[in-house]
Amino acid sequence: MISKEQFQQAQQQARNYLARAGIAITAEEAANIEVADFGLNELEQTGLELVVYLNTERVCAKELVLFPHQTCPEHRHPPVAGAPGKEETFRCRWGQVYIYVPGETTPHPHAVPPRGREKTYTVWHEVILDPGEQYTLMPNTLHWFQAGDEGAVVSEFSTRSRDESDIFTDPGIQRAPKVAE
Amino acid sequence: MISKEQFQQAQQQARNYLARAGIAITAEEAANIEVADFGLNELEQTGLELVVYLNTERVCAKELVLFPHQTCPEHRHPPVAGAPGKEETFRCRWGQVYIYVPGETTPHPHAVPPRGREKTYTVWHEVILDPGEQYTLMPNTLHWFQAGDEGAVVSEFSTRSRDESDIFTDPGIQRAPKVAE
Repeated sequence: MISKEQFQQAQQQARNYLARAGIAITAEEAANIEVADFGLNELEQTGLELVVYLNTERVCAKELVLFPHQTCPEHRHPPVAGAPGKEETFRCRWGQVYIYVPGETTPHPHAVPPRGREKTYTVWHEVILDPGEQYTLMPNTLHWFQAGDEGAVVSEFSTRSRDESDIFTDPGIQRAPKVAE
Repeated sequence: MISKEQFQQAQQQARNYLARAGIAITAEEAANIEVADFGLNELEQTGLELVVYLNTERVCAKELVLFPHQTCPEHRHPPVAGAPGKEETFRCRWGQVYIYVPGETTPHPHAVPPRGREKTYTVWHEVILDPGEQYTLMPNTLHWFQAGDEGAVVSEFSTRSRDESDIFTDPGIQRAPKVAE
């Protein structure tokens, strides 16, 4: 759980990154930026800031903000109630992001996994996205990603998000964000 | 059909608008911008420029460019082969766009329909989108849209696009783009 102060500070930082990336959001969106610390309370190394634009039965679109070297931990999107899992495309809008997926291990990857949690990072085929570049993940594919030196703003285009169904490699992770009162 | 020269000029203009909106695209995307004149050869008043980011079985994302007062003509996305029609969300990134949908007719709408084709514009409930604002259209809903004085750049998040199945109110329209050799 992160403190209310950390939460508000992360929201403000995320707004600054979005502004730097030239991405307009409404006042309501700005007030409701999601800060995910994945239950680890190490937001600086493991975390993600999200503006969810829409999440209907069929379509979801989000803007993701990653602070410098911040990591979204390894997970996959399994089938839910007979329907195929979430398919998602990441498109880098600003900064740089390293995505890791199954496949040949990249010899000298750019990312360093969060300290103390290295064993929960098991896929090491690296895809580097600069602004304007994108990568599509089919359902149930293990993946994790980390921003470069400047941080990153990444659009996500996908089928419906059901975050509560995501399966994380790290058993210590809780997806549902909690903020101290 | 538009001439090759018109086509290339429209592509270049679209690239300029995307740059102004701060949206990065790859060299390949820049070279393949779609210019739709809807078979009317009146691109200035009826037309749309598109960067299709992805279009899988389940998810589609595009960037749409509209020149000042350019109109995407009235149409709907019907069910196809038993599957529900396309659901789409328009999110204004830059400029201003007026969307028209079924509902109470707006007394003094901002858009003026393309000259000589006024009768093919039948829905007049206006939704105005400024940067950061969005609107979601459920399948089979008649709609058309027009950019404001400066033009517009609009992100589209949707289920799979099957442009060839779109039903236009104007019987003179052909969706598949044709360019003279």
